[in-house]
Amino acid sequence: MAVTIPTPTPQTAADPLALQRFLDGRYAGTRDAVRGWLDLPQNAPGDGLTLEAHRAQVLDWARELAAAGRTALGFPVEYGGQGDVGASIAAFETLAWGDLSLLVKIGVQFGLFGGAVLHLGTATHHERYLADIAALRLPGCFAMTETGHGSNVQALETTATYDAAADEFVIHTPTESARKDYIGNAARDGRMAAVFAQLIVGDEGRGVHALLVPIRDEQGEVLPGVRIEDCGAKLGLDGVDNGRIWFDHVRVPREALLDRYAQVRPDGTYFSPIESSTKRFFTMLGTLIQGRVSVGGASMNATKVALTIAIRHGLERRQFGVPGEPEALLMDYRTHQRRLLIPLAHTYALHFAQAELVDQLHEAFSSDGDGDLERRELETLAAGVKAVSTWHATSTIQECREACGGAGYLAGNRFAALKADTDVFTTFEGDNTVLIQLAAKNLLTGFRDDLGELDPLGTAAFFAGQVYETVAERTAIRELLTRLSDDLRPGRKDEGELLDRETGLELLRWRAEHTLGGAARRLKGGFDAGRDPFSVLVDTQDHVFAVGRVWVDQVVGEAFSRAVDRCPAGPERDALDTLCSLYILSTIEADRGWYQEHGRLSSTRSKAVIKAVNALCGRLRPQAGELVEAFGVPEGALGDARRVEGV
Amino acid sequence: MAVTIPTPTPQTAADPLALQRFLDGRYAGTRDAVRGWLDLPQNAPGDGLTLEAHRAQVLDWARELAAAGRTALGFPVEYGGQGDVGASIAAFETLAWGDLSLLVKIGVQFGLFGGAVLHLGTATHHERYLADIAALRLPGCFAMTETGHGSNVQALETTATYDAAADEFVIHTPTESARKDYIGNAARDGRMAAVFAQLIVGDEGRGVHALLVPIRDEQGEVLPGVRIEDCGAKLGLDGVDNGRIWFDHVRVPREALLDRYAQVRPDGTYFSPIESSTKRFFTMLGTLIQGRVSVGGASMNATKVALTIAIRHGLERRQFGVPGEPEALLMDYRTHQRRLLIPLAHTYALHFAQAELVDQLHEAFSSDGDGDLERRELETLAAGVKAVSTWHATSTIQECREACGGAGYLAGNRFAALKADTDVFTTFEGDNTVLIQLAAKNLLTGFRDDLGELDPLGTAAFFAGQVYETVAERTAIRELLTRLSDDLRPGRKDEGELLDRETGLELLRWRAEHTLGGAARRLKGGFDAGRDPFSVLVDTQDHVFAVGRVWVDQVVGEAFSRAVDRCPAGPERDALDTLCSLYILSTIEADRGWYQEHGRLSSTRSKAVIKAVNALCGRLRPQAGELVEAFGVPEGALGDARRVEGV
Repeated sequence: MAVTIPTPTPQTAADPLALQRFLDGRYAGTRDAVRGWLDLPQNAPGDGLTLEAHRAQVLDWARELAAAGRTALGFPVEYGGQGDVGASIAAFETLAWGDLSLLVKIGVQFGLFGGAVLHLGTATHHERYLADIAALRLPGCFAMTETGHGSNVQALETTATYDAAADEFVIHTPTESARKDYIGNAARDGRMAAVFAQLIVGDEGRGVHALLVPIRDEQGEVLPGVRIEDCGAKLGLDGVDNGRIWFDHVRVPREALLDRYAQVRPDGTYFSPIESSTKRFFTMLGTLIQGRVSVGGASMNATKVALTIAIRHGLERRQFGVPGEPEALLMDYRTHQRRLLIPLAHTYALHFAQAELVDQLHEAFSSDGDGDLERRELETLAAGVKAVSTWHATSTIQECREACGGAGYLAGNRFAALKADTDVFTTFEGDNTVLIQLAAKNLLTGFRDDLGELDPLGTAAFFAGQVYETVAERTAIRELLTRLSDDLRPGRKDEGELLDRETGLELLRWRAEHTLGGAARRLKGGFDAGRDPFSVLVDTQDHVFAVGRVWVDQVVGEAFSRAVDRCPAGPERDALDTLCSLYILSTIEADRGWYQEHGRLSSTRSKAVIKAVNALCGRLRPQAGELVEAFGVPEGALGDARRVEGV
Repeated sequence: MAVTIPTPTPQTAADPLALQRFLDGRYAGTRDAVRGWLDLPQNAPGDGLTLEAHRAQVLDWARELAAAGRTALGFPVEYGGQGDVGASIAAFETLAWGDLSLLVKIGVQFGLFGGAVLHLGTATHHERYLADIAALRLPGCFAMTETGHGSNVQALETTATYDAAADEFVIHTPTESARKDYIGNAARDGRMAAVFAQLIVGDEGRGVHALLVPIRDEQGEVLPGVRIEDCGAKLGLDGVDNGRIWFDHVRVPREALLDRYAQVRPDGTYFSPIESSTKRFFTMLGTLIQGRVSVGGASMNATKVALTIAIRHGLERRQFGVPGEPEALLMDYRTHQRRLLIPLAHTYALHFAQAELVDQLHEAFSSDGDGDLERRELETLAAGVKAVSTWHATSTIQECREACGGAGYLAGNRFAALKADTDVFTTFEGDNTVLIQLAAKNLLTGFRDDLGELDPLGTAAFFAGQVYETVAERTAIRELLTRLSDDLRPGRKDEGELLDRETGLELLRWRAEHTLGGAARRLKGGFDAGRDPFSVLVDTQDHVFAVGRVWVDQVVGEAFSRAVDRCPAGPERDALDTLCSLYILSTIEADRGWYQEHGRLSSTRSKAVIKAVNALCGRLRPQAGELVEAFGVPEGALGDARRVEGV
């Protein structure tokens, strides 16, 4: 059957400022304040500084922002904050337009270290430390990762042994692989560390808990029993002083234990309101969720800087063309449109998914609602969006660099720092590959809480085959219903509907559901046949990974679609609608092999998807400039953009 | 129909040294000599140096190598070389395991600057300069790119106007966009530049020609009329002193013109043995081919460093696994196998394609054969392999960095430098996007010589519709024959053959041929309908791009397959055979959407491709270590690899 892709009609260009207001949403004021700060000449990224000068500059900036009360918006009001988690993340995301070392330094101090004290500690800790942390009078570290263990937190080796006679914990690094590694704020500035260690009370291992351990005195001298080594130069983020820490039987008082979820009494009795040790562990780790959401948002904003530079360049730079006429603009070429406008559409999509995520997180923290299911769903979403956003940043920034040719290679044009600094986002706050599998496992086990969070292989779940059975049955029924409704709904098979948002979303939903159901059935089949659980997992792992990955595509598409519907009618909404279609169809295009394998796209319709993506790129081309201006990246954060533009 | 993928039988591991000998091929001695030099402690990459110290170190190294006669192996013997182009490229490629700034510095001095004098100049230039260039007594620049024009060399703006009265050329930078930009060796060390400029003789423009222009005196002072600015810090390659050059009516004698392909007599008569100005231009540019081949080879070797580090790490680092047992090795996970072993297979494939390319180039330079068709085929291959190799390097090095987690982010582990230094490889010596389209255009126009090389849009060809017609007809007939032979050959449709190399290669060939034919027909259709040529091109551009891209996949696969056949029977050949199948099938897997669209894979067979790729990964897993050891990357080039290994 012939497929006709309607020729897109030209659209009235969106007004960048109106679109920016819509993108900024409820935290527009917070974002504008950060924009203003970033646009001051003295706050331009410190890309050219030496390691030590860069670290000093970053600390100065952080102190300035802390003094102005701008770094701990999520802290309770009584400790110098504003009790507004959403605003806190919005401010953090926006800061990603500037020097990313500053961003990460702030994330370590106020998000990770401060967050550990706030969420894992109790009133005593809050009283004693939070105000100093918020004011950066007490610089601290989040000492979780060890050289030998990053993602598998449950296997950390550092020990915290309770000595009842002294009423103290003894913190110790038993092996070289147990040294704390890559710890931000450790090499230079940190005075205290939230140390994650195996708690041992009366010879009984109680699993990983966090304790506050002083590491330097007021003069900045390293304390006895503590050894610190500088991680030195890194691929990027050299304004952050990452280091390694060893503890040699360091003693801290019993109150050093951050005891919201578990207490140790003077006599050595261990008590926790959460009975299951696995559940307790993952409840504690739940505090990481804000870090993940923050990193996802920051990477998206770094992406916006790159896209702004590259698309401006493509609208200035001419190359080849028709003899006798001025050379054509780079943006006029289809290959250039595809390489920049498709990532642009995905950036918009992730922006709106992120905004919903921040709202949900804000809600969860504000309502104090402790619904397990909601919490796990939020964790799953945060894990998935963080992974996809950070990978998107890595690939898009690279594409933008190449799209600017040799000019993109000069340090003054920001790509050097953008690439180098965002690179580790795919690793920290949870390795992306692990996070996607974590999301997959939560989906596969119906968000069951007792199966372990950060163990993406779900070893526990290997022995819980009935979980997969439930998911397998549920998805089989849903698929059947979808197919039935497809067949019943008039016009559903009409090829002309390809540009229709709902049609595309259904394709994304169907893929997510089918991938989930298929993986559940394969796992169950393997376990039922009595095969070795590890080899069942290995054989299915690429499928399991896909479960998480395609689910994110679906939820991101749905979030974008809701945003389009929320936008007041007009050119801005038309532009978002087109971007949303481009997001959806380019996602389907990238996986059209799968859609054909599963009978959801005919070969003809599959080819039509490619044509539609090209047509949408052509349609967006005339307002490509407006669509990046709408991000509102301050000029001061764009580097020597004039130079990129070729003169 | 059910598809059975035979369970792969375990293979005896290849002997790394035997495999290394096979990979090293005819230039094993040259490669070993460079290995030895790189393994000396004083020659370890200068990643931690300051900009100026790094530049000084690189110059010292280059002088040392030049003094030892190791940098200009391709130069004629009488000027300090060995007249061996193949060995010269082999040595250059191998140097890519070390500090890539040194590699690029050497490429600029001996490959680009020296190559311009050698290939575009005549006896006078050779006598006067080559020995000094070979010994690095005369450091020079290749001043082609301008701020306003990179890929479109024909549109350069710098002028070289002949003043017959003075018997001199006047070199001038008429606009800001005409300044020479990103020129290696310009900011600090260069004394002379091969300047590409529009030659104007007696008011007539003769197109772009190269002239030798002194830019600094013996004391290193910039000469009158010349202005030089430092490009400053770059994303990487900071040991190379890139700069900008402006010329203000700088006068050089008539003999400054590199006059192999065009002479200007004292009276101002212009003469060229090549009548067509377009052909003359592209003949001159043909000298760039060696640079492209060199960069392709270098990027492949940088990739090998990254893969060696990451696969070793994957064989040491344990994470998660079955409770009660030691954690599993990263390499035991299917996702980890896919992320590293598929790029490993592509690296092997590109290695052998590169080796064939070097052989052909060596042959072409040695035989002095000037067959136009052969030359264009070689250029096309060089363009395609350069683009694919350098993109492969960018993506693989990134994948390897992420596969090493936080440890991969420390500067000591080489990923920082590997990423940053190789990044520009996708841009210089021809922008990859342009090069792929150049290859496509050569294929679409049957390698016709008069249609312009570096104008990938083939504006000239827009008006030569009959060319496309020929290609369209030819490919249609070939496709018909392929289909017929498919139907006639017994067992051709047998699903079990998926792991058979020839089956896979036929799928790659068919895709290349079909993509080419389809693009030719679309272009011809557009032109025949009288549509605006530029919009015909834009509408077809992604298809035209695919013509070049998929053709490279085919020729790389064929080169790999020939290498397997050449390898003596035994475990090394078995390993190569498996890697070759993985290369072919993972390529098909990545484009299985296309194969289904074009009826060459059923949905069942398409899914079987995924299973086969997974099975091949599992089969190679036990000898992953041997397969990277066989690259023979010196330990000294692997950085703090111990640290990556987690202790």
